[in-house]
Amino acid sequence: MTRSHITGFSNARVKHWRSLRDKKHRKRSGQFLVEGLRLLEDARTSGRLPRELVMAAPELGGRDPHPLLEKLEGEVLAAGGEIITTTPDILTKITGKSNPQTVLGVFEEWETGLAVINRAAAPIWLVAQDLRDPGNLGTMLRTGDAVGAGGLILIDDCADPFSAEAVRASMGAVFTQTVAQARWEEFVPWLRRGEGQLVAASLRDTVPYRAAPYQSPCFILVGNESRGLPEQYEAECDLRVTMPMLGRADSLNAAVAGAVLAYEVLAHIKTR
Amino acid sequence: MTRSHITGFSNARVKHWRSLRDKKHRKRSGQFLVEGLRLLEDARTSGRLPRELVMAAPELGGRDPHPLLEKLEGEVLAAGGEIITTTPDILTKITGKSNPQTVLGVFEEWETGLAVINRAAAPIWLVAQDLRDPGNLGTMLRTGDAVGAGGLILIDDCADPFSAEAVRASMGAVFTQTVAQARWEEFVPWLRRGEGQLVAASLRDTVPYRAAPYQSPCFILVGNESRGLPEQYEAECDLRVTMPMLGRADSLNAAVAGAVLAYEVLAHIKTR
Repeated sequence: MTRSHITGFSNARVKHWRSLRDKKHRKRSGQFLVEGLRLLEDARTSGRLPRELVMAAPELGGRDPHPLLEKLEGEVLAAGGEIITTTPDILTKITGKSNPQTVLGVFEEWETGLAVINRAAAPIWLVAQDLRDPGNLGTMLRTGDAVGAGGLILIDDCADPFSAEAVRASMGAVFTQTVAQARWEEFVPWLRRGEGQLVAASLRDTVPYRAAPYQSPCFILVGNESRGLPEQYEAECDLRVTMPMLGRADSLNAAVAGAVLAYEVLAHIKTR
Repeated sequence: MTRSHITGFSNARVKHWRSLRDKKHRKRSGQFLVEGLRLLEDARTSGRLPRELVMAAPELGGRDPHPLLEKLEGEVLAAGGEIITTTPDILTKITGKSNPQTVLGVFEEWETGLAVINRAAAPIWLVAQDLRDPGNLGTMLRTGDAVGAGGLILIDDCADPFSAEAVRASMGAVFTQTVAQARWEEFVPWLRRGEGQLVAASLRDTVPYRAAPYQSPCFILVGNESRGLPEQYEAECDLRVTMPMLGRADSLNAAVAGAVLAYEVLAHIKTR
């Protein structure tokens, strides 16, 4: 059965998809939801296909046939996936949005251990520690795509990169940037087993961030939104740089700080 | 009566404060809410005092006496304002948060016409057009504080700078950065009546953003999150610069793009 139609609100599959809004259920099932044809198309062209495609039937207010959607449907079926049509009300129930996208994809989460990182593949890697806001996380993925970074390494207790908000804020970069998750105690030994310069913005040091001696592969470390980086994490860095703070505050939004630093590194990086 | 105590859920003032979560009611009353002692302290040290201070009574789970809170109370009373104690449940009702801050300030909105801008007062001004996300708006205010900008000019239909989310994301910069709101049709003639270079990131031009000929006062224009800037707005700019986009996407998060550009301008700006 590769095509089916669901109309019941209490259908077990509807309940399962709805549960994927919660991190706990995503982790338990290893699945997550992607909303909207645009993101699904980003996924497809990055080689990621949903296992299930859930969409409003055209006669029930779904979208008119669209060449990209037809292509996606064909590839999902060819890969052994499933197409499920349903009602707009059920899409609302699943997503919790009053105006949901008319198509959803159910994906299997992929491996995010440090082993997925090939550090030689890119000159820049972004690293976030205890980053709690999924919007900031998605924004960092998007920035990583723009600066040609290889990916984003999430240290300690970060937001879930597979949450709907992170996926949306990434504008599809979650499918192209490599994502890894690790504790600091695993990350540091992994980092030190190969080449790699760990860099953070800091108030405790005096190297100006402009034209500092950045080296490839450069790992740009950004801390928690409220607390910044723990002092011992800063101490582990190979390079601590200061950015001008001309106002009353002493910090930037975490995703902004990472982006300003990443663009500076991009302009000055030297390959070893 | 400068001190009072409210316990009734259906009290008219409680209903009024609760209504300030909606932009419509903020505009009608000209008031907005600021949550938490930290932001209230930022406001106070920037010369902004709430007209009313609403807090949980200590015996009802409010915070213990705090020197900064006592100072704030004293200044609010001296300025003819009012202190209202209430219950944690009512603070939850007002803010819509299950764990609300234990103190709220009710502020009068201030004037945000273009007349509030003294362009000679700072080398950088941020300008956002149709910026819809209050978090992005607050982040731009915070960035403006860091780069020594004078303020943020909101063009056309932006998020409300006095929303709780924008105030929070600004980390207090809403009290120190000048905020103006205008339609494009008012902004351009105002800009052209004095000195000022209008700069935007663009895909349609070829001046690299690094070390472009930025001039003070520099107005950095950022467009809507989804649509970017209208073509005629870009055409009005004195300088269009390109930033590297090495990935699949052709844009950055709006607040990130503004920040990367603002830090570049800060490093290279020439005073006329």
